[in-house]
Amino acid sequence: MRPFADVAAEMEETLDPGDWDEMRALSHRIVDDSIDYMRDIRRRPVWREMPEEVRTFFQAPLPRKPAPTAEVYRQVTEKLMPYPMGNVHPRFWSWYMGSGNFTGALADFLAAVQGSNLGGGSHAAALMDEQVVNWCKEMVGFPASASGTLLSGGSMANLIGLTVARNFKAGVDVREEGVAAISKPLRYYGSDQIHSCHRRALEVLGLGNRALRRIATGEDLRIDLTALRRAIAEDRAESFRPVCIIANAGTVNTGAIDDLEALARLAAEEDLWLHVDGCIGALLAIAPRNAYRVCGLEHADSVALDPHKWLHAPFDVGCILIRNATAHRESFAVTPEYLESTPRGLASGRWLYEYGLQTTRSFRALKVWMALKEHGVEAFGRLIDQNIAQAAFLTQLIVEEPFLELVAPTSINIVCFRFRPGAVSAEALKALNTEIMLRLQEQGTAALSDTTVHGEHCLRVAINNHRTRRDDLELLIRETVRLGRQISGI
Amino acid sequence: MRPFADVAAEMEETLDPGDWDEMRALSHRIVDDSIDYMRDIRRRPVWREMPEEVRTFFQAPLPRKPAPTAEVYRQVTEKLMPYPMGNVHPRFWSWYMGSGNFTGALADFLAAVQGSNLGGGSHAAALMDEQVVNWCKEMVGFPASASGTLLSGGSMANLIGLTVARNFKAGVDVREEGVAAISKPLRYYGSDQIHSCHRRALEVLGLGNRALRRIATGEDLRIDLTALRRAIAEDRAESFRPVCIIANAGTVNTGAIDDLEALARLAAEEDLWLHVDGCIGALLAIAPRNAYRVCGLEHADSVALDPHKWLHAPFDVGCILIRNATAHRESFAVTPEYLESTPRGLASGRWLYEYGLQTTRSFRALKVWMALKEHGVEAFGRLIDQNIAQAAFLTQLIVEEPFLELVAPTSINIVCFRFRPGAVSAEALKALNTEIMLRLQEQGTAALSDTTVHGEHCLRVAINNHRTRRDDLELLIRETVRLGRQISGI
Ligand SMILES: Cc1ncc(COP(=O)(O)O)c(C=O)c1O
Ligand SMILES: Cc1ncc(COP(=O)(O)O)c(C=O)c1O
Repeated sequence: MRPFADVAAEMEETLDPGDWDEMRALSHRIVDDSIDYMRDIRRRPVWREMPEEVRTFFQAPLPRKPAPTAEVYRQVTEKLMPYPMGNVHPRFWSWYMGSGNFTGALADFLAAVQGSNLGGGSHAAALMDEQVVNWCKEMVGFPASASGTLLSGGSMANLIGLTVARNFKAGVDVREEGVAAISKPLRYYGSDQIHSCHRRALEVLGLGNRALRRIATGEDLRIDLTALRRAIAEDRAESFRPVCIIANAGTVNTGAIDDLEALARLAAEEDLWLHVDGCIGALLAIAPRNAYRVCGLEHADSVALDPHKWLHAPFDVGCILIRNATAHRESFAVTPEYLESTPRGLASGRWLYEYGLQTTRSFRALKVWMALKEHGVEAFGRLIDQNIAQAAFLTQLIVEEPFLELVAPTSINIVCFRFRPGAVSAEALKALNTEIMLRLQEQGTAALSDTTVHGEHCLRVAINNHRTRRDDLELLIRETVRLGRQISGI
Repeated sequence: MRPFADVAAEMEETLDPGDWDEMRALSHRIVDDSIDYMRDIRRRPVWREMPEEVRTFFQAPLPRKPAPTAEVYRQVTEKLMPYPMGNVHPRFWSWYMGSGNFTGALADFLAAVQGSNLGGGSHAAALMDEQVVNWCKEMVGFPASASGTLLSGGSMANLIGLTVARNFKAGVDVREEGVAAISKPLRYYGSDQIHSCHRRALEVLGLGNRALRRIATGEDLRIDLTALRRAIAEDRAESFRPVCIIANAGTVNTGAIDDLEALARLAAEEDLWLHVDGCIGALLAIAPRNAYRVCGLEHADSVALDPHKWLHAPFDVGCILIRNATAHRESFAVTPEYLESTPRGLASGRWLYEYGLQTTRSFRALKVWMALKEHGVEAFGRLIDQNIAQAAFLTQLIVEEPFLELVAPTSINIVCFRFRPGAVSAEALKALNTEIMLRLQEQGTAALSDTTVHGEHCLRVAINNHRTRRDDLELLIRETVRLGRQISGI
């Protein structure tokens, strides 16, 4: 008799559906609904407030007992699908993110069906993962000998880049000894427009927020090169160790692009690592009319880019590229005994997890791969040009409209402006514009966000959206002016 | 006349399909193929070598021009789907990972269709994300007041836990000042069986590998408590600052579970942070027959767990729980000006990105949510018990088989053993067992991995698989013995 007969073999369970045909029918329904959802998106509000009943629904405790899959799906259609963030909508221009695409969603499904773990090994998904990294190199003009990896997004991409810079430039074995073994405190430089993820990266890295020296920007919101040079000289004089310049290829506030050529020269002269945060702008390199804006990108030591922004891949997928492949690998590789490679078989492929902080890695490559194959990179380049042309169009509408004023120069696809009803206090102006923004959201007309640029509060329209059309922008202006006048009673 | 008339509005492009019905038809085909793929998985080899032609295919450069979506999908079916890692197969027991589930794949599709960014804000996906974190607290017995977040996996979960421990215990403002401002070097303690991600975490954190003191394990591969106490005392005497014990609830090598009750007491006495790496074993808490093994878990300061392992969520999704919610938030929050919350509208929800290192976050909650609703947590608990009973069954088969020997005690679902043809050198034994492992893979029979436990090389079967049946394990034993005898000629 076999042991453990208390759990009889014939009682063995699985998560697989008992009835595959029922699951098939449900899946077809899900596909139909999803096609309709995407196709008809323009007819729905960009955003809407959730009723109390929906909020309560998501407070239910852990379910103990099963429920029919169709019933679970019904709850999804009723409680989840009608209340999205809104970024797949043509009039979503809040913060900064892509708007997805249907093929990408199919890819995420197929990735989960195929199920591979991208930690590495010898299988097709692993090869595709490497191929997509190679395509990213091609897109930004990096050499094939460079290294790179796909990861959860721009924040992680920047973290990896700054980690390699730290380890490579520290002058001691930081991995073994830690940051305390470094004789002089390290310094990183970025403009005052830098994304918050850099601060969080330096904090995690044990260098501290004070290791990030913020350099002033000019009217154009690009880093002031003279101030940067001065800061580096000062730091050397005061026994800091300058190690890295973080250049912005597209700031999150206004889209400003630092002078990458000049920064590359400066980094070379000063023997600094040049990291480019290209989460917004690195992909300008594929846009025929606008590629010139990121000249110099190809000289960087590392570039962070974000396929879930201007390639519109469903979340999440970011990419870090690192010129010095050895420096990259030496920052993360540890091969423990149970992951020894074998000359043949499953474990004969590369360990892809040795290039970042994940071990298990999801199959992020497929959604990027399928969309690039389907549309070709040239289409993505044209769409980037299109968003920039749309931002210029919107800027023109603002300039022509007496009640509106531009608050920062539009450089690429981000437009900062406000409604201004004559002379009012800064506080009243902020309250008024915030109210306009909220009403636009609550009406379901458009989702914008707000920000503060060099001390001035404004509305911010980030057109990173392949569904936006010019008439959407005309509608935005009409409604902004209408609401502004209504609220301020003029 | 409108400016930029060179890109005429009527020429505006989108990534949306030109013909939705064609996309609909293709999507239905994809669903049918995927249902077949999952249903018939048992008929396919667990793994197979890729032909050269497939390898070449994945070296093609960046596609410039478009291709029909159906053609892109055809390439996926021919070049990708037949060559998976294999972890969705019933006889995959390599490394340590879940085996996915069909509902989870549908959820990943729906998440991408709905498209929300889980960085935060007021929308349904954000509420569901918080709900799933709450469910994780319920599963491991953490209080509702604890904090937590979903992230890319166990490695990131551990990194977040160890970061909060560092920041909370350092005694200085590490976020601002960095690690160099800490007067005495910090020390973390874990057993010699600890997962490699902890080393990588401490390296990234700027504490260095030497901040991780590895404590010996006994025959049972659990941390030696006496040795741990001694190490802490020694470190205090030598002016280190002990801050954190990393307990294993399931080691990756053998599944050993440290004495969590004793470690919780010790941590309290010594005023240390207790972090439990429960990527493998925290979810034992939901398994009726085996929950007792992780008693004490509920006293931890932080617990890393991994829904993409024993909840079989498609990759990737991990979770970190942190008892002290304030300590969690204070380790990561920075609210920059363009992310100011508003009292109403889209930005009135919580900023979920303030609990980890991502800004954009994918919608990982849905796949966990749908599967838990569908099956109920009790089913997952039974499946965990089932895997452990299967490992005990396999252990028994090994013990009964003269050509096989157990190399480590089986504690949960990981079995370490080897084929032993009488007296041979350690080297020959390793070569023989490696060859058996490779042939099992190449035949497509089973995927195992190998490891070294206390110096002894062995084959390792990690049964984290809801599709495995006992006859699969019987087949494994038969084939292992057959191959072992064949290769060694006995
Ligand atoms: C300039 C810049 N860098 C980094 C990031 C962070 O990227 P992610 O949200 O993918 O983490 C963003 C996000 O908008 C960004 O705009
Ligand atoms: C004990 C343990 N900790 C951490 C990890 C890392 O988890 P992940 O692969 O999800 O990053 C693993 C992975 O197998 C593990 O077994």
